[in-house]
Amino acid sequence: MASPFVQDHYPESFAHCYGCGRSNAHGLHLQSAWEGDDVVARFTPRPEHLSLPGFVYGGLLASLIDCHAMATAAAHVERAAGRQMGQTDAPRYVTAALHVDYLKPTPQGVELVLRARVVETGRRKVVVRMTVSAGDQDTARGEVVAVPLPDSMAGA
Amino acid sequence: MASPFVQDHYPESFAHCYGCGRSNAHGLHLQSAWEGDDVVARFTPRPEHLSLPGFVYGGLLASLIDCHAMATAAAHVERAAGRQMGQTDAPRYVTAALHVDYLKPTPQGVELVLRARVVETGRRKVVVRMTVSAGDQDTARGEVVAVPLPDSMAGA
Repeated sequence: MASPFVQDHYPESFAHCYGCGRSNAHGLHLQSAWEGDDVVARFTPRPEHLSLPGFVYGGLLASLIDCHAMATAAAHVERAAGRQMGQTDAPRYVTAALHVDYLKPTPQGVELVLRARVVETGRRKVVVRMTVSAGDQDTARGEVVAVPLPDSMAGA
Repeated sequence: MASPFVQDHYPESFAHCYGCGRSNAHGLHLQSAWEGDDVVARFTPRPEHLSLPGFVYGGLLASLIDCHAMATAAAHVERAAGRQMGQTDAPRYVTAALHVDYLKPTPQGVELVLRARVVETGRRKVVVRMTVSAGDQDTARGEVVAVPLPDSMAGA
């Protein structure tokens, strides 16, 4: 059975992302998969990923939101086309705009859950909205505009 | 002479941030200082900080924007109060909201320059706007809402 994780189906040349690339030895290796109608990722920050002692670094949350949104866009587009995960390479989206509202401090030492949906699709863009939760608390909200990989990035 | 870098003047208990804390052994150690009326930081991403081969990871840019905005808020508030950098501890701001527009792909292997100003101050909040440039190209724009460290984070 194919891996449920979107990032396992990016073509190898696009699998080096620091946040979610399976081929980045130093990266975060975020993994995103369908759970019902949401795309969900789970991540436990490393001890060094702090802002102040006891709390997760906001830049890490922004990074996770960014990668999870690209995976959500890809998963959504594949499902809308009637394809199963892994049937073809996952389409590679990139971020046009990222917005994060930090609702409350995110505690360290807890697995974080990112839960995302596509809320708008245009001719090219896909808008993803998500929550980040720690236990039963939503600590951040993200909204991300994804666009297909531009030609200028595909040839490097 | 006192260090020109805001982050060198955060109190030790608030100097562990992954993005800019001088006391985080694994962190990015971003440093921000006045250059005329702008607050400026320079950072060369590590080789692993890529999105796709040849291009910088958007989550890293969001992280740098986040930390640089907090430093800019602190620097602004200190200057507005008539204090020199290092005269007292720098005030510690945290991020309420972060917005990044990715204008074009950011090339790897180049020193990035973050150039920021405060564009609005409220009773508590400070709004910072900045550009990220690589060589002569602006590749991203950030707008960040900073608020003073809440009591819930100060006691950890």
